[in-house]
Amino acid sequence: MSPVTGPRPGGRSARIQQAVHASTRKLLAERERADITVPMIAADAGVTPSTIYRRWGDITEVFADVAIERLRPETPPRETGSVRGDLVAWAQEYLEEMSSPVCRAALRDIVMSGDMGRPDNGTNQYKCAAFCRSQINTILERDAQFSGAPGAVEGVIDHVVAPIVYRILFDQDPLAEDRIGALVDSALDTVVHA
Amino acid sequence: MSPVTGPRPGGRSARIQQAVHASTRKLLAERERADITVPMIAADAGVTPSTIYRRWGDITEVFADVAIERLRPETPPRETGSVRGDLVAWAQEYLEEMSSPVCRAALRDIVMSGDMGRPDNGTNQYKCAAFCRSQINTILERDAQFSGAPGAVEGVIDHVVAPIVYRILFDQDPLAEDRIGALVDSALDTVVHA
Repeated sequence: MSPVTGPRPGGRSARIQQAVHASTRKLLAERERADITVPMIAADAGVTPSTIYRRWGDITEVFADVAIERLRPETPPRETGSVRGDLVAWAQEYLEEMSSPVCRAALRDIVMSGDMGRPDNGTNQYKCAAFCRSQINTILERDAQFSGAPGAVEGVIDHVVAPIVYRILFDQDPLAEDRIGALVDSALDTVVHA
Repeated sequence: MSPVTGPRPGGRSARIQQAVHASTRKLLAERERADITVPMIAADAGVTPSTIYRRWGDITEVFADVAIERLRPETPPRETGSVRGDLVAWAQEYLEEMSSPVCRAALRDIVMSGDMGRPDNGTNQYKCAAFCRSQINTILERDAQFSGAPGAVEGVIDHVVAPIVYRILFDQDPLAEDRIGALVDSALDTVVHA
């Protein structure tokens, strides 16, 4: 069974993944990330270190795999009655969540995993962006004007998601929440005037 | 002498920094980054490993320090006769440079260095953003309408720099160059309509 296609739920491979994820999350809550090693995770999860090396490659990929699960959306975006309202509400929640120490660390772990500049890599980074694209697409599909509009999803990525994430990774302060309305307007403007 | 304030040019500390940077760049050109160790850099630079550990802490910080020097702008932004033209020209160059494998790796190294969520850290990430702010500010100061306009620099960061960097770090393809004009227009619009 290839880890690329994902383990069969309830199978041995899925149980190992769950155990390794749970142990990694537990260790991350207890100590500095730089002090965590593959043998430590293996001992806690009740697997051999070579099981982890074979499946994930190295600890960077274990952290990134756990990080992806943390960032996976659990519910569809809230409905407020308008596309603009839905996007503002979703972006405010995204900003609040991503600015938390746990999600900020998860974003960093994802950036550090296999460089997508190389073939077969970059899947973690791309998954992280795909979570946003899927949520944004759900919102845009609720309105005939924006549903399927060319470039609409990418406009929200550029004008709303990118500044939120850029400021978390490169700035001393997160984006000011009161700027979100204007950024959503810029994204919607590009569709209306396309 | 504290590394925080920067070494005196030509002094012993500056010579060590130059030697360590040169050896790190040389090793990065020769082999996989995961295979490079502090003792390897030390041997090549003719210093002891403990000199490197004392000054940089660990190899992540050495890579980030070298990355910052790679990203430091060498010339002021080109003058094209208009703020819009200057911003488009600068952003096109920034996109082209940052999309190169060397600069993409440098951005990743900077993200990975000391988390700015902690006191005294985050200086590398902030420096990286400050390079952009300084170049953008130079352009905006050339025009009375935009010089000193509140939020103008931050608008260009949000609408132009953030999508360029976000797509390099999280997407399979860099931003399409033909989108830069529209992103610059969004950034300038926010100033004109402020």
